[in-house]
Amino acid sequence: MELWFTEKHSPGRGLTYQVKQTLYQERSQFQTIDIVETEDFGLVMLLDGVIMVTEKDEFVYHEMLSQPPLFTHPAPREVLIIGGGDCGTLKRVLIHKTVEHVTQVEIDEMVTRVAGMYFPLLTDCTKDPRVDLVFDDGTHYLRNNQDRFDLILIDSTDPVGPAEGLFQRDFYADCQRALKEDGILCIQSESPYIDALREVIVQANRDLRGLFPFVFPYLTPIQTYQAGLWMFQMASNRYNPINPEVGKRIDSMGSAFQFYNRAIHDACFAMPEFIKRMLV
Amino acid sequence: MELWFTEKHSPGRGLTYQVKQTLYQERSQFQTIDIVETEDFGLVMLLDGVIMVTEKDEFVYHEMLSQPPLFTHPAPREVLIIGGGDCGTLKRVLIHKTVEHVTQVEIDEMVTRVAGMYFPLLTDCTKDPRVDLVFDDGTHYLRNNQDRFDLILIDSTDPVGPAEGLFQRDFYADCQRALKEDGILCIQSESPYIDALREVIVQANRDLRGLFPFVFPYLTPIQTYQAGLWMFQMASNRYNPINPEVGKRIDSMGSAFQFYNRAIHDACFAMPEFIKRMLV
Repeated sequence: MELWFTEKHSPGRGLTYQVKQTLYQERSQFQTIDIVETEDFGLVMLLDGVIMVTEKDEFVYHEMLSQPPLFTHPAPREVLIIGGGDCGTLKRVLIHKTVEHVTQVEIDEMVTRVAGMYFPLLTDCTKDPRVDLVFDDGTHYLRNNQDRFDLILIDSTDPVGPAEGLFQRDFYADCQRALKEDGILCIQSESPYIDALREVIVQANRDLRGLFPFVFPYLTPIQTYQAGLWMFQMASNRYNPINPEVGKRIDSMGSAFQFYNRAIHDACFAMPEFIKRMLV
Repeated sequence: MELWFTEKHSPGRGLTYQVKQTLYQERSQFQTIDIVETEDFGLVMLLDGVIMVTEKDEFVYHEMLSQPPLFTHPAPREVLIIGGGDCGTLKRVLIHKTVEHVTQVEIDEMVTRVAGMYFPLLTDCTKDPRVDLVFDDGTHYLRNNQDRFDLILIDSTDPVGPAEGLFQRDFYADCQRALKEDGILCIQSESPYIDALREVIVQANRDLRGLFPFVFPYLTPIQTYQAGLWMFQMASNRYNPINPEVGKRIDSMGSAFQFYNRAIHDACFAMPEFIKRMLV
């Protein structure tokens, strides 16, 4: 018997894939968590029925959320990750030797526990003495912090359910307060190819531009996410990602990555015409 | 009753979309041709069950197959399109005033006829006096031409069925002979995110590098094609696409496009690490 699952990306379309077996199914306090073995993507973790992590291509999302801002900052020491319970982003932050301390604030402890069972290559990095795992609502956590972080990464689910508060202007304002004066905030910002998500992208862009002197949207093709194209937005108090010094730092790390490199760094900030017009 | 169709992109995954109604179904001498009205993509043309053109996003593929090579050549006058029966590429070639003559060689006349019924915004351009429509096998057509074209665009279906011959080294060699000494060949080159297509991409890259002094692969996210990421390969006898003169020419055309612009031109040639390693 062949089992197939379709993840709807809008009412009229979705990604369909063959599931060899279901390995784990649970409902946490916040969401459903599934682990399935698939024909094409290896092991997959889903939250509320939406693909979060696949063995096959998690490197694309996790490298591209973390590396552009990490290399844009000349010496990121203190890093905060909001969300990111699977630890794929955390693993890529720790590659940087300048990083002295990473706090990860995930709302759902069960996500990290289940990731530990099925994605040990991602969660192994939690043993690093620089890591501090906190299980709390990111919006609560941030209110008690000021002038503390060089970099904040928002590695959230979609703006429905537990992550809704992570797409609000007030939350971005709290991030701005929690950053040092030359700090950088970088958020995952959904798919510009999905009509219903465009308002989310445009609103986040407006909110960030109201709070930060510089906002740099960037794009990456991610085959297991909605419509295969993903946006991020980097909001920066001082540093510009397009800078030869950034390029030199990337080159000095050799080929530590499977997706990211110096050319990809410079290229990801190019916006197609229809997105430029959307973000005016 | 809701009707859904799944286009398989490999044995274990596919793109699923809702079909409001089927408007046309026919089998030509070469392939099946379907026109359906979809919830998310507007009207869609399928050849042998594979999406070729959608109202929603045809601009991405057609602009990105045509504009990078058109702007890389300082004055493309004589252009050849092999395939491209829907005329979406042809329309974008004709935007360029330097172009004096375009020959389009499509194997299946029925594709162009059906496109004329459902995609008149694409086929209207065939009235342009610079256009010469030929219905013939592209591999046959090319053998009788030498030193004639500034630019050849291969706008083919996948390398199974009628387009198989358009992915062979002999065909690329015929293209090389049909080009002027400073000519450019540009091919659609499938999705690097689909494992089974990687050998096609690598082989085309090797074949082209054996025939042309310069080969520039480039990438574009296309949500209705396999895995949402598409590759093209530009093989050039003389001109390099990364060149400030090219940028000036793009800027001089203003915002004639929905996807392509100067920043996208420079960015599309950046290759992720895993593709760079694949093409060594």
